[in-house]
Amino acid sequence: MAAKKLLVVNAGSSSLKFKLFGLEPFAPTMSGMFDRIGDKANCVLKASAPSPDGAAKPRKWEIKMQAANHVEAMTGMLGFFREQYDKAFSSQVMAVGHRIVHGMDISQPVLLNTDVMAKIKAAAVLAPLHNPPGLQGIEAAQRVFQGVPQVAVFDTAFHQTMPPHAYMYALPYDLYEKHKIRRYGFHGTSHKYLAEQAAVMLNKPVGQTNVITCHLGSGSSIAAIKGGHCVDTTMGMTPLEGLMMGTRCGDLDPAVVLHIQNQMGLSTKDTDTLLNKKSGLLGVCGHNDLRAVIEGAQGGKPRDALGLAMFVYRVQKYIGAYTAALGGHVDAVVFSAGIGENSSIIRQLILAPLKGVGLSVDRAANDATVDGKQGEISDSGSKTKILVIPTDEELSIATQTLEVVRGETAMANEPAAAA
Amino acid sequence: MAAKKLLVVNAGSSSLKFKLFGLEPFAPTMSGMFDRIGDKANCVLKASAPSPDGAAKPRKWEIKMQAANHVEAMTGMLGFFREQYDKAFSSQVMAVGHRIVHGMDISQPVLLNTDVMAKIKAAAVLAPLHNPPGLQGIEAAQRVFQGVPQVAVFDTAFHQTMPPHAYMYALPYDLYEKHKIRRYGFHGTSHKYLAEQAAVMLNKPVGQTNVITCHLGSGSSIAAIKGGHCVDTTMGMTPLEGLMMGTRCGDLDPAVVLHIQNQMGLSTKDTDTLLNKKSGLLGVCGHNDLRAVIEGAQGGKPRDALGLAMFVYRVQKYIGAYTAALGGHVDAVVFSAGIGENSSIIRQLILAPLKGVGLSVDRAANDATVDGKQGEISDSGSKTKILVIPTDEELSIATQTLEVVRGETAMANEPAAAA
Repeated sequence: MAAKKLLVVNAGSSSLKFKLFGLEPFAPTMSGMFDRIGDKANCVLKASAPSPDGAAKPRKWEIKMQAANHVEAMTGMLGFFREQYDKAFSSQVMAVGHRIVHGMDISQPVLLNTDVMAKIKAAAVLAPLHNPPGLQGIEAAQRVFQGVPQVAVFDTAFHQTMPPHAYMYALPYDLYEKHKIRRYGFHGTSHKYLAEQAAVMLNKPVGQTNVITCHLGSGSSIAAIKGGHCVDTTMGMTPLEGLMMGTRCGDLDPAVVLHIQNQMGLSTKDTDTLLNKKSGLLGVCGHNDLRAVIEGAQGGKPRDALGLAMFVYRVQKYIGAYTAALGGHVDAVVFSAGIGENSSIIRQLILAPLKGVGLSVDRAANDATVDGKQGEISDSGSKTKILVIPTDEELSIATQTLEVVRGETAMANEPAAAA
Repeated sequence: MAAKKLLVVNAGSSSLKFKLFGLEPFAPTMSGMFDRIGDKANCVLKASAPSPDGAAKPRKWEIKMQAANHVEAMTGMLGFFREQYDKAFSSQVMAVGHRIVHGMDISQPVLLNTDVMAKIKAAAVLAPLHNPPGLQGIEAAQRVFQGVPQVAVFDTAFHQTMPPHAYMYALPYDLYEKHKIRRYGFHGTSHKYLAEQAAVMLNKPVGQTNVITCHLGSGSSIAAIKGGHCVDTTMGMTPLEGLMMGTRCGDLDPAVVLHIQNQMGLSTKDTDTLLNKKSGLLGVCGHNDLRAVIEGAQGGKPRDALGLAMFVYRVQKYIGAYTAALGGHVDAVVFSAGIGENSSIIRQLILAPLKGVGLSVDRAANDATVDGKQGEISDSGSKTKILVIPTDEELSIATQTLEVVRGETAMANEPAAAA
């Protein structure tokens, strides 16, 4: 009998990213994406897998395959898996784990049922760009992998432990009661993974660690995590709040939003596009690739230097704010994601002025810990450790999916409790 | 000849607050306000002055006096001063200092002329509620005190030393260039005064001090001040950003502003009213008197407890953020204004969890330093000193006005430089 597998799916509006995990041993065996769904001429399935003979070079596929919608894309993916693995592939998939952006008040990964689907639909009002494609991905997987348990893992779930004073906005209270307006936070799967990995590196139970996790990529957020539980995070009701990002403005005087509409005659929709797609590094520097921004700054371009300084300063402010939120007791500050893992320059710029708040970077270790390497980059005199940890959201989704499915099985096998 | 006087004026939409200073010695001699200007039935001039015989009880006046506009109110005020002091009172006023909220990029108090008036008018687009009455106050004083030098002291001026990475928003750059959208900061006169007083209490030149000044009142803001120069502050392009206030929301995911408009069908004007007038403590607790909120919280009312915790937490986060902005080198954290000077409970709630970031409060000193008392409330083990300093914006405006007028006189008397 062929080995059982677990499939992780991340559905976008015109894409289906996937990662396939083997269970014995628990490890990724293939990853890829179905891209440009609905665009007949350009639909493509891309995949890569470690070479079976252990060679350094992975095997790669790029296959033109038409798909008018997510169901057709999922069907095409299944056909590809059958070719690569086994005709009975779908019976070998023991679960599908879905990355869903907004779960409102859901605090755990959950087995999908009609109630959960209804909640994800309801949450679409708070994540109009993300939850609808997430639902399409789920519905496609339910049709193509019939009878296979489907689990939703929410980007917001890990942040549900925030106390009310951190998640409430100072708005009329009925906006919270009636419209569910509050801070939710995102990148939760990443922050959870980073807190757990940090505990391993600190050689302490996660319940005894306080960490500040900096997920710095094209979308960026920071979380304050106390004993494994999130107590605050920079993203808000939507992923727009907090740090400066590739194209998102982050923190902003709320009156500026109204001022822009009035001064420029913009609709709410166009203002949303301006704040989410035309701001951040793109807005300030004219381009949103941080490497280009760094090069421009080093080459003396004033707007690149400004954008870089703004990006760095906001991270510093939040490290300070969350140090206070954790009462000054911080075991480690963690850097991760595209920028956090790869840009030793950015880390150096962030950390160098923070010696006085207990963060002392080892320059050589910082320079060496790039390109997916994990390690400590603080020097021996640093009060707080500084760690670089490559994030792995798919691995975390797979692990959480497995826990849900095994938990459900365990519960089903338990003798019924006496009434 | 009667002693020269200096008049400080703070004009609101239907009020004219004033404070009169004698010059030898330089000290306030009377303060008050003309209230409900334009409301025929209820216009009133209130004033109080220290008793001339040194009794503890001040002299008080409350006089019904009609005024259809600021010019009539100013004329009424002058009549009152003539009665109290001298028929030639207006010739004794050597300068009038005006508190003006928004000065855009003006970084100093300035003698009013047509250029400055034009700038204040232009800045009205950024402070539509404050600058127009400010201009009315100036025009009234120019008519009533003809020939007397008029000086504008701006709430934004002290913050003009912020570096670009602190004052720029991560928006498309042309919003800054064309629309002047950036962080300006407010309460600048108060933060400047507090930094100078703190230096006196620290017994150091202000240029050698780093302080975090917390102006906590019905409007609240915090500033990070390095060597006497502001490097960051919580209020933004408008006074809406930053801390939770009496009726203002403070920091908020900018996407929430658009979401409220879309979900509730509100205009930008109604949304502005919601965020500025119906939010903050009022929005969360249902009332915006902090004493009532504290009593409610102590009495177990959950929404009062929530509002209190939110207010406190945001102050803590900014103290942390600005500690990082100052590289961890903070000589003192200063509390001032209505809440900061009078509520030892709020200070205790803010400070008690911050021992780990170098702030250790002396409970007895904290309890004793209320009702306009100035003093240190940190214990001897505190890394950073904690000071309570009653703010005095009028005194600061008077001092700055005097400096401008004397500077101008000095310049006029200087021999012309060789070309």
